[in-house]
Amino acid sequence: MDVWRITREGCEPENAADNGNRFLIGNGFVGVRGTLEEYRADKQAAVTLAGVYDRAQNQTWREPVNAPNGLYARLENAGNIVKHSQSLDILRGVHSRDTRYERAALYIERFASMVDVHVLCQRITIEPIGEGPVTLVCGIDADVWDINGPHLTDFHTVGGDVLRVSARTYEQRLPIVVSEVCHTPHDEIRAEGNSIFRVFHITRQTTLERVITLNGEPRMGKYDDMFSAHAAVWERLWSDSAVTIVGDDEAQLALNYSLYHLHSVAPRHAEGLSIPARGLSGQTYKGAVFWDTDIFMMPFFTLTEPELAARLMRYRVDSLPGAREKAAQYGYDGAFYAWESQERGAEVCTDFNVVDVFTGRPVRTYFRDKQIHISGDVAYALCKYIEWSGDSALWDDGGQALVRACADFFVSRAFRRAHSDVLEFTDVLGPDEYHERVDNNAFTNRMAAFTLERAGYLYKVRAPRVINGVVEQFDGYFGLEDASLSEVRARLRHPNEYWGAQGGVAYSTQIIKQADVLAMMHLFPGDFTDAEVERSWRCYEPRTEHGSSLSACMYALTACRFGRADLAYPLFTKSARADLDGGGKAWAGGVYIGGTHPAAAGGAYMIVTEGFAGLRQEGGALKARPCLPEQFEGLEFPFIFRGKRKSARVTRDKVEIEERRHD
Amino acid sequence: MDVWRITREGCEPENAADNGNRFLIGNGFVGVRGTLEEYRADKQAAVTLAGVYDRAQNQTWREPVNAPNGLYARLENAGNIVKHSQSLDILRGVHSRDTRYERAALYIERFASMVDVHVLCQRITIEPIGEGPVTLVCGIDADVWDINGPHLTDFHTVGGDVLRVSARTYEQRLPIVVSEVCHTPHDEIRAEGNSIFRVFHITRQTTLERVITLNGEPRMGKYDDMFSAHAAVWERLWSDSAVTIVGDDEAQLALNYSLYHLHSVAPRHAEGLSIPARGLSGQTYKGAVFWDTDIFMMPFFTLTEPELAARLMRYRVDSLPGAREKAAQYGYDGAFYAWESQERGAEVCTDFNVVDVFTGRPVRTYFRDKQIHISGDVAYALCKYIEWSGDSALWDDGGQALVRACADFFVSRAFRRAHSDVLEFTDVLGPDEYHERVDNNAFTNRMAAFTLERAGYLYKVRAPRVINGVVEQFDGYFGLEDASLSEVRARLRHPNEYWGAQGGVAYSTQIIKQADVLAMMHLFPGDFTDAEVERSWRCYEPRTEHGSSLSACMYALTACRFGRADLAYPLFTKSARADLDGGGKAWAGGVYIGGTHPAAAGGAYMIVTEGFAGLRQEGGALKARPCLPEQFEGLEFPFIFRGKRKSARVTRDKVEIEERRHD
Repeated sequence: MDVWRITREGCEPENAADNGNRFLIGNGFVGVRGTLEEYRADKQAAVTLAGVYDRAQNQTWREPVNAPNGLYARLENAGNIVKHSQSLDILRGVHSRDTRYERAALYIERFASMVDVHVLCQRITIEPIGEGPVTLVCGIDADVWDINGPHLTDFHTVGGDVLRVSARTYEQRLPIVVSEVCHTPHDEIRAEGNSIFRVFHITRQTTLERVITLNGEPRMGKYDDMFSAHAAVWERLWSDSAVTIVGDDEAQLALNYSLYHLHSVAPRHAEGLSIPARGLSGQTYKGAVFWDTDIFMMPFFTLTEPELAARLMRYRVDSLPGAREKAAQYGYDGAFYAWESQERGAEVCTDFNVVDVFTGRPVRTYFRDKQIHISGDVAYALCKYIEWSGDSALWDDGGQALVRACADFFVSRAFRRAHSDVLEFTDVLGPDEYHERVDNNAFTNRMAAFTLERAGYLYKVRAPRVINGVVEQFDGYFGLEDASLSEVRARLRHPNEYWGAQGGVAYSTQIIKQADVLAMMHLFPGDFTDAEVERSWRCYEPRTEHGSSLSACMYALTACRFGRADLAYPLFTKSARADLDGGGKAWAGGVYIGGTHPAAAGGAYMIVTEGFAGLRQEGGALKARPCLPEQFEGLEFPFIFRGKRKSARVTRDKVEIEERRHD
Repeated sequence: MDVWRITREGCEPENAADNGNRFLIGNGFVGVRGTLEEYRADKQAAVTLAGVYDRAQNQTWREPVNAPNGLYARLENAGNIVKHSQSLDILRGVHSRDTRYERAALYIERFASMVDVHVLCQRITIEPIGEGPVTLVCGIDADVWDINGPHLTDFHTVGGDVLRVSARTYEQRLPIVVSEVCHTPHDEIRAEGNSIFRVFHITRQTTLERVITLNGEPRMGKYDDMFSAHAAVWERLWSDSAVTIVGDDEAQLALNYSLYHLHSVAPRHAEGLSIPARGLSGQTYKGAVFWDTDIFMMPFFTLTEPELAARLMRYRVDSLPGAREKAAQYGYDGAFYAWESQERGAEVCTDFNVVDVFTGRPVRTYFRDKQIHISGDVAYALCKYIEWSGDSALWDDGGQALVRACADFFVSRAFRRAHSDVLEFTDVLGPDEYHERVDNNAFTNRMAAFTLERAGYLYKVRAPRVINGVVEQFDGYFGLEDASLSEVRARLRHPNEYWGAQGGVAYSTQIIKQADVLAMMHLFPGDFTDAEVERSWRCYEPRTEHGSSLSACMYALTACRFGRADLAYPLFTKSARADLDGGGKAWAGGVYIGGTHPAAAGGAYMIVTEGFAGLRQEGGALKARPCLPEQFEGLEFPFIFRGKRKSARVTRDKVEIEERRHD
């Protein structure tokens, strides 16, 4: 099988949403949803710009802006579709579609240039079948998909040799300019609303090349030349990051696919950016950066592209003013990082994040104000990056200040009982968001303790309770109803109900959304013996809905701790195939949460390197302990440790780590 | 107008629930709902026993047991009702009904003896009209109204000179025995299920007297004799408690009616009892004792019947073991009093008190575990009772231990910030139950501070924030949505929705259920100037739903603080007429909460004595400051202060307090 390509046969407009995620292309500056060229807003076609946040008309928050779609193309007079396939070359980031109509064959390739990130290239080949011309309409579609109302206004549309649709965003009046150059002369120009198209009446096999430029002087160039340069960048990315799985092509494909997504959304083109939780697949979660990046994606970039990892952490250092502002807003000291972070750390998470599907009323949620572990997550990611990379410059240049500010926040947020000096963190929301406003969430307390320790503070933080050998997720967790997952699911009265919040089905039970205690156990492996990890795993995994794509990898990683790659393997598959299989939750409590899942992709990488290979560093020394699933014969992967290029070769018995020459 | 009698004309079966409360008779041992004699379970007829708690079949909690109804009576063959009235003599606690049927006139009186509390007396007069006999069926109806399933089993029914229905409760197998003696020989005995009736075929004017005994040897006696003794007790009660309102008969009737209810439910017959929140009107709220008794009813008994006030506080002292057990259950020291208290302080409040009317699922509520002000309320009531009565014996005999235990609880429940020693009370529920799990509720903190101080502890408690001169109800209250009451009400999607809880209409707004800051201002008058009280009043009153019958009196009392009897007057009427007007909330979040409102009655008394007369004690000296509504010409009332019988005569300008001789 081809482990570098995914293909879907058959025309599946009802899967437009899943395919839009599955076949996404991107270059960190722009993401183009994997919808077909003729799809428009109603099928979630979108060209999403990184780091361009603006308020939609009549909205109170900012979210990413989708640009007019310069890749738009449709055939007319070609009859019905006879055969169709859609494909993604994940080795080189090329989307293609191959459609046989009754009266024409249509083949289109597109890629988002890794060389010049403002550029999208498209090559269209049409072969008419039988009588009469077929008509190709292609150009810039200004019918933009927006989940919360339009972002663009003041459209200006120009047809001619260069097509151009320019507009401004509503709030900040940022210019969005899409231009298109086509080397083949058109037969006519057609304007539809703010859209502008070229029309070609085609009677013989024809290949058109189109170059779309987003916000810049219109670029020109031959498709093949631009593609070669683009493919060379991908080749280099893969040579520094590709993991070879011996003996399991299915797993190989899934992992390649995961890393493809991470590469596609990495902001290599500019400072001051990070990676949103849904990558560049649309406007979900306001295009904001979550702990997903710090905890789930950082390991991949730290091992394979440390400059990018440094950039992601630099985003957090640069966000310190926003985090300080948020802390002050709540009356705390130091830095309270945004749960949903936009430019320079601006918090865009609202107090009402879900809708009661029965009453239609917004429900107060606590992500913004109670999920305080975020400040610990950021400090943790920074310290772990520095430990691995040896990049002490970042520590001196803002990193230490960041950790200190996070520690100050935790101190001001903490409470002590009247007769004790141990800090407790009450009224928090842990990773398991189905249990709001709990006390002494083990994960949160541990993150706070880590942060305080790295800041050089001497406070003691309340340790988790251990009941029958199992770490209690928060005070009183084991007093909740011990209902099974299927029982709890059966209590739903509406498919889009939110499971958490006070009236939700999970709230009063031990059913949790995602790894929480086990996430802590993965991040602080030295705190627990393998047997302790296993005991907690066997308690919590059956109680986990895995309602977040962040969940499976933590259970997989910790299963490797106690030698059970067989338990980890299906969870690896689940992480690695999150966007390949699609069908994940697109709605939660009446709110659209669809899009790609780069954190699950990062999780898949962690499972392979930290789980199956058992690679870690301790005090500057690399250690590894293989725990290969039986499906794997071996593993091989390059990485960088403290500036040194290395490669790991993993067999069932051992891990060999070698220096690697730069090719 | 007759200020000692209430009467309703017309037969109103649809108002059976309201009339059942409105026309209640009781003697502290038994409450008989004011339903007509022919009404059965379907119209909420009930004979409720004080202090008899048992589990219904298949239930997990205890609630009061209703006895078979020995007052049952119906006419047959009498044709339709032509004219009907129902009446309550509140001077002597006699219920009567006067019904003209097409073929008979029926007049029945009943009372619950204040002399022998196990006895209910009934006198039935029937006058046939025209041809043929009418048939009277009367006896013991075993068709008992139960809101959560039957409580009685093992029925044993005996007919004869003495009718008897005996049964046992399901859980504890407590015997419930109802017997009936009738001086007039019956024509036949009729058994229907477990019920047993006498049948009389009546052809001429006939008067029957029936004596019903609950749990005891069947009593005999003449109605007139038993009534005389009963009326003499009422006369004495009124001579020690009646408030004379000069110039406002409507208010006089409403206040008489309120005090009637308080007298009817006061447990004069036995130690170890207190007064449930819904009196003796049924099984609502599990017949449990709430802070209603301590804060809203205690003033009436303290001023008029100190032995009874002592008994109510003795109930709390005796409940200390239950309160200690509850504290220990939650990991706290000292005494955490039950939110819903049954025998010996057993907590019967559950974690799920309301039902989501949309999903039918129970909703986690926090009355039991977060409404910690209850321990302060109990300590406050005890101290205030002792201050007023001078009963220092109670302080030595358990009272001090109670206050100390409550203080220990507060200390163990409190938190300090890392850099402060001031105690804060986080994650609590104040009197305003629509805002759950708030921090530093001003009322709660003040109650805790009072308790700590009275225990001789030196801790400092966080003072409330004051914003624009208004005391903030809890940290962050003024950050909530400032929506109007009508706006918030308009958001309801179902009439029985619970306003609080995370999805409720009030939860995220400044709309509150009941007086909270203003309740604190009333209970701690020395903390605030009149102007400060007024400022907070003008902020909170318009934001109050008055969804609790405990609300109006606190606003009325505090309005008198700043000289606005005109604002207090309608709130006085509302409190005093709570059960007279009926129509209060019978359902909240799918749960039945109907019944009488003795705390509102107690509130009405407080308004008159502490508000309109402005009576208070300071360091052993009585003070008063009249604030009469313009509808009143004057006020006069007896009371007892430190064992001395006194009377207050209030005019618009002054209050005269005199010694009073015992008649």
